[in-house]
Amino acid sequence: MLNNTPELNALFHALADPARRAMVERLSRGPVSLGDLAQPLPMTLSAVMQHVKVLENAGLVSSEKVGRVRTCAIRPDTLSQAEKWINACRVEWEHRLDRLGEYLETLNNEGDDHGTDQ
Amino acid sequence: MLNNTPELNALFHALADPARRAMVERLSRGPVSLGDLAQPLPMTLSAVMQHVKVLENAGLVSSEKVGRVRTCAIRPDTLSQAEKWINACRVEWEHRLDRLGEYLETLNNEGDDHGTDQ
Repeated sequence: MLNNTPELNALFHALADPARRAMVERLSRGPVSLGDLAQPLPMTLSAVMQHVKVLENAGLVSSEKVGRVRTCAIRPDTLSQAEKWINACRVEWEHRLDRLGEYLETLNNEGDDHGTDQ
Repeated sequence: MLNNTPELNALFHALADPARRAMVERLSRGPVSLGDLAQPLPMTLSAVMQHVKVLENAGLVSSEKVGRVRTCAIRPDTLSQAEKWINACRVEWEHRLDRLGEYLETLNNEGDDHGTDQ
């Protein structure tokens, strides 16, 4: 699996905050200025900038300043890293259920065979 | 989206630690005793128990003590919550790309039409 990546630590840490998740949701719909990103959130612009920094450090968001406006954009590849890790866990889990199902099937068939023998 | 759930805060916080992710990976392959879960990890049993508590509080892991052995198991439904949230963001992002593609296509066609007129 992809576990031993410091990127995943920063990534999941960044997503552990509801304001940062709200920003990621907003940016998933397209790039916006820092002002527009801050507008619906009940916090100061300074607090929003700190959250954006955490998202940038995690590689989830990029931002660019043109003139006086800083525009933020999502980096979907990074979000995919988290999705891949969770997905890999689910695949393991489903394999296990399949194996368990096959084992129970074998036990069941063996039971039937013994039933026929008697 | 499913953003405003305190569960997601605890869930992503729990996954932000590499030792806890290693435990989730191990438990995805099936339930194990606390001792076996701790065995490959370079930390004390007490530290492992603290990590398991964080995973339990996040709803990612359940544990049961029978006699002297505590057995831990994954709770895959909780992991799916995180997967669903990330997936919803990706869907938004892909919709945006589709809309952008359609818009560019329209611009392109309009350009072609103008070309024919002249």
